[in-house]
Amino acid sequence: MHESVDEHQLERILQNNEDLATHNREHFDELGLMSINLMSAPGAGKTTLLERTLTALTEESRCAVIEGDMVGELDADRLRRKGVDVSQISTGRSCHLDAQMVARVLHAKAFSGVDYLFIENVGNLVCPAEFPLGEHRRVVLLSVTEGDDKPIKYPVIFRQCDAVIFTKCDLLPYVNFNIESATKHLRDLNPNVKCFSLSSVTGQGIEKWIAWLGAERTTLQRNIALSTSNRG
Amino acid sequence: MHESVDEHQLERILQNNEDLATHNREHFDELGLMSINLMSAPGAGKTTLLERTLTALTEESRCAVIEGDMVGELDADRLRRKGVDVSQISTGRSCHLDAQMVARVLHAKAFSGVDYLFIENVGNLVCPAEFPLGEHRRVVLLSVTEGDDKPIKYPVIFRQCDAVIFTKCDLLPYVNFNIESATKHLRDLNPNVKCFSLSSVTGQGIEKWIAWLGAERTTLQRNIALSTSNRG
Repeated sequence: MHESVDEHQLERILQNNEDLATHNREHFDELGLMSINLMSAPGAGKTTLLERTLTALTEESRCAVIEGDMVGELDADRLRRKGVDVSQISTGRSCHLDAQMVARVLHAKAFSGVDYLFIENVGNLVCPAEFPLGEHRRVVLLSVTEGDDKPIKYPVIFRQCDAVIFTKCDLLPYVNFNIESATKHLRDLNPNVKCFSLSSVTGQGIEKWIAWLGAERTTLQRNIALSTSNRG
Repeated sequence: MHESVDEHQLERILQNNEDLATHNREHFDELGLMSINLMSAPGAGKTTLLERTLTALTEESRCAVIEGDMVGELDADRLRRKGVDVSQISTGRSCHLDAQMVARVLHAKAFSGVDYLFIENVGNLVCPAEFPLGEHRRVVLLSVTEGDDKPIKYPVIFRQCDAVIFTKCDLLPYVNFNIESATKHLRDLNPNVKCFSLSSVTGQGIEKWIAWLGAERTTLQRNIALSTSNRG
C-alpha cells in the first residue's frame, strides 16, 4: 500500500477489487471448484508445497493452478511437470495479485471439471492481504526459518486467513522457532485459524493438510448445494 | 506497486519520492554519516545481522538506526538493547519505507556525531526497491533458506543494490541453496554487486561485512571532501 495514494483513492481501489472478487467467486461457484489463495513471504515454500499437494491430490481429483510472479515462469514450469494446467500471471511491478488479474484468466479459460484451483500469490506478507481474489480459502505459509514473531509483525495477513502452514519443519532442530509460541500469537489475532506443521521435503505432516483440503471441499459443496436448493 | 494506480500517477509518486530522497541525501552528507538501506524478505535476518553489526561497530564508531515496521516496536526494542538510538517508523498499511517517512525523522532528530545510520526497511522484496530513501548504500539480504532462484524472481531489488548478503549460512548443510549459482544470477543482473556469505548466529563471515562498511565509509568521506573542495 502506498501512503502517497490518498485514503479516498485507496478505498476506491479496494472497493473495485472487492466487486471483482465477488464476480470471481460467482465463477468459482458455478464451476463447482474450490479456489485456494496461497500467500507467504518469498521463499517460504509455496511452490514446493504445491508440488507435494498436486502429487497427492491428482490421483483422485483434477487440479489447476494460477501462478503469480513479477517476471518469468520458473514456478509455473515446475508445476506443469506435475501434469496440471498452469496459468501464469506476470504482475510486472505489482507486488500482489488482484481480482482483475484473476478475472482475466477466468474469462480466457474454461476450468471445467476442475476440483481444486490453487492460486499462488506473489511472495509478500503485506499487500496480498488487502486484495481478495474471490477465493474460497485463504492460506498463509510461514517458514520456521523466518521466526515465530512474524504474526505480530505482519498482523493483517494472519488475521484474515483460514489456515496457516508452518513449513520447513525439517529445519526445526537448527533454528530458533517455537511452534507453540507462533500458534499462540496467531490465535490471539485469529482464534479459529487452522494450523499445520509440515515439511515438503520429508513429507511429514502433508497428509493432514491434504485431508483438510478434502474436508473443506466437501463442506463447500454442501453449502453451495444448500444455497442452490434454497433459491430453487 | 498497484496496477490500479495509473501509470501517470505512479510516475508522479515516484518522482516526488526521488526529490525527497535527494533532499535526505543532502542531510546525510551534511551530517557526515553513511546511511545504509537494509532490505530483504520477511525473516531473512535483518535485525539479527544489525545486532551483530552494532556490536562490532560501536566499539569505535557511533551508530543509529531507523527501524521500519508495519506495527509495533519488537525489532526496535531488540536494537535499543545494543545501546544505540533507534527511531521507529510505523508504516501501517504501507509495505515499504519512503523518502517522506525518513525525511520526517531527519527533521525531528539531530543525528549529530553519528558515523553509520542503518535504515531497516519493511520485510518485502518488491516495493522497497522502487522507493529510494536517499541512502548512500543499498544492501539486500537473501537467506539461504529462501532458495537461490530469488534474484531471477525479484530482479528489480537485486539489480539496484550495492551489496547482497547471503544470510543464515549455518543452515547451508540442510538446505538446497547453491551460493555459486545465486552469485551467477546476481552478477547477470548487476555485474559489480558485492556478495557476502555469513551467519549472524555463528559469526562466520561477519568480519568481511564490517570491513566493507568501513571501507565504503572511507570512500564516501573522501568523495564528499573532494566535492566540497572542488566547490570551494
